[in-house]
Amino acid sequence: MTDGYRGRRTLITGGLGFLGSALAVRLADLGAQVTVVDLPGPLPALQRARREQLPATVAWQPCDVCDTPRLAGLLEPQDVVFWLAAQVSHIGSMEAPLADLDVNYRSLLAALEACRPWRSRPRFVFTSTRQVYGRAESLPITEAQRPRPVDLIGIHKLAAEQALRLYAEVYGLSTVSLRLTNTYGPGMDFDDPRKGVAGVLIGQAVRGEPLTLFGGEQRRDFNFVDDVVDALLRAGRCDELSGDGFNLGHPQPRSLREFAETLGRLLPVSIDIVPFPAERQAIDPGDSYCDFSRFQRATGWFPQYDLASGLRETLAALPQVSVPQPDYSLA
Amino acid sequence: MTDGYRGRRTLITGGLGFLGSALAVRLADLGAQVTVVDLPGPLPALQRARREQLPATVAWQPCDVCDTPRLAGLLEPQDVVFWLAAQVSHIGSMEAPLADLDVNYRSLLAALEACRPWRSRPRFVFTSTRQVYGRAESLPITEAQRPRPVDLIGIHKLAAEQALRLYAEVYGLSTVSLRLTNTYGPGMDFDDPRKGVAGVLIGQAVRGEPLTLFGGEQRRDFNFVDDVVDALLRAGRCDELSGDGFNLGHPQPRSLREFAETLGRLLPVSIDIVPFPAERQAIDPGDSYCDFSRFQRATGWFPQYDLASGLRETLAALPQVSVPQPDYSLA
Repeated sequence: MTDGYRGRRTLITGGLGFLGSALAVRLADLGAQVTVVDLPGPLPALQRARREQLPATVAWQPCDVCDTPRLAGLLEPQDVVFWLAAQVSHIGSMEAPLADLDVNYRSLLAALEACRPWRSRPRFVFTSTRQVYGRAESLPITEAQRPRPVDLIGIHKLAAEQALRLYAEVYGLSTVSLRLTNTYGPGMDFDDPRKGVAGVLIGQAVRGEPLTLFGGEQRRDFNFVDDVVDALLRAGRCDELSGDGFNLGHPQPRSLREFAETLGRLLPVSIDIVPFPAERQAIDPGDSYCDFSRFQRATGWFPQYDLASGLRETLAALPQVSVPQPDYSLA
Repeated sequence: MTDGYRGRRTLITGGLGFLGSALAVRLADLGAQVTVVDLPGPLPALQRARREQLPATVAWQPCDVCDTPRLAGLLEPQDVVFWLAAQVSHIGSMEAPLADLDVNYRSLLAALEACRPWRSRPRFVFTSTRQVYGRAESLPITEAQRPRPVDLIGIHKLAAEQALRLYAEVYGLSTVSLRLTNTYGPGMDFDDPRKGVAGVLIGQAVRGEPLTLFGGEQRRDFNFVDDVVDALLRAGRCDELSGDGFNLGHPQPRSLREFAETLGRLLPVSIDIVPFPAERQAIDPGDSYCDFSRFQRATGWFPQYDLASGLRETLAALPQVSVPQPDYSLA
């Protein structure tokens, strides 16, 4: 399912992000022509490092996705566009609602509109989020649940999904949205709490700090980055998936406490359970994990990494960490 | 339910629109302090006429709702804001997606964000649309149907509803959304096909032109303007309705053909049934009418005008039309 990229012209927005750069490396391995787009201007250290690690065949194009005229020129020759550019923080979306709107929806709408009249139009693979659902009505969450986002990211990602579906239905564009859950793996940001709880906890463990858990019993589905890259590649190849949004997920949801305890089998950690800060409680969706069987049926995708093996890979990629031999059995 | 407006400070965005100007007149009658906001610049004839017909006590403030700093200054002293400003055309939203986004969602989000820190914040009553649903899954459409808009208006109005709900849940703003269907009545625009099918058909009848129906069997719920004004007034007073979206509707849905035939009992008309133009078919939701029982239970609202009596009132307000005595029984 992930072959067929040889010679294909692919572009990744947000291509110096954690997931985007992993996707770029994999696409280059598969023989695709790869263009990576990310914000212009001086690169933060993590993005600079990711850019330096890109294969030489990957083209780097600094471009704000909100700069539609310039972006359109980059999109036009492509076969597949992986639209990963995003503001990804819950709190960030609530602190800067209009900026979130512009990055997470308006830029995509402008790009779709730019593509509309072209004779040959790229397929769009869009990274949405389980946050479009808000709180789970039942678990695991299926695509039948009525979306009721509890933050502005969720509202704007949902609007983006709807526009992708609309442009498929009305204009025949080829589009698909994947609702990602919690992605982790080598190269992720371990220092920015706004990039998600998985990175925060791994970062604390690596630095020898106590792992701070808000509550701790909230269950999530943690996907190792290679599995998410595999899902994106399958979505990009499977043209009969058009317009719709599909859940990703993991067959073994884990609580944050279990996540911390699994880390604790690889590194010495101490765990601090603390009450929820009020401003986080208000937008926390509680237990939240998704049924990915619809995407599995459509593409054959199934996560290959359980949490223990994924965390082991993540830590093994860090030069400063010596990972002990496992004393656990891989589930 | 509609008393209690005496002395209340109210503001209407889109206040020189068909519905907005009718609401302004009614609020002034009820003794409210009324501010009407609509686009600055030279007014089109219809808006100029509506402005001239406003009671002298109504304050007129030209202001683009996208001009958030200026608008915020007008919103801050209010008790109730009726947010009616909108781009209302299906086709218009598809022709100018970004303009639709800015008017139908971004301006409202910016206004909500501006209100957030105020000590005293107005209640928001927002006019949404049944277009948030897209095609009906079953009829009449209830609020339990999962929204799946088939045009950009629907996507952007849905985002606006979600933001209003979110700001209610997270920040305690007082908000409510009403999903309007097809509103008609005296003072509506009979010349602009983008303002909806009811006005087009009445305009054709008044000018002695054949009534052109696309298909003709699509059923809709037609609400007379006084009934919709009554719904807005009830929504503005009923503070316990917060965050949610409610359907309006009519107990007697009518097909477009029935609408034309009802007109034909008041004026001599001929009816042309023509096939759907392709670009309209793609975004037409088919049969679409809504169950308003949730709003009825919450507020006691129930439409007082059937189609025949509403059309009679509409035509009677036109100086050039002589309406015959009815030869039909009011249902």
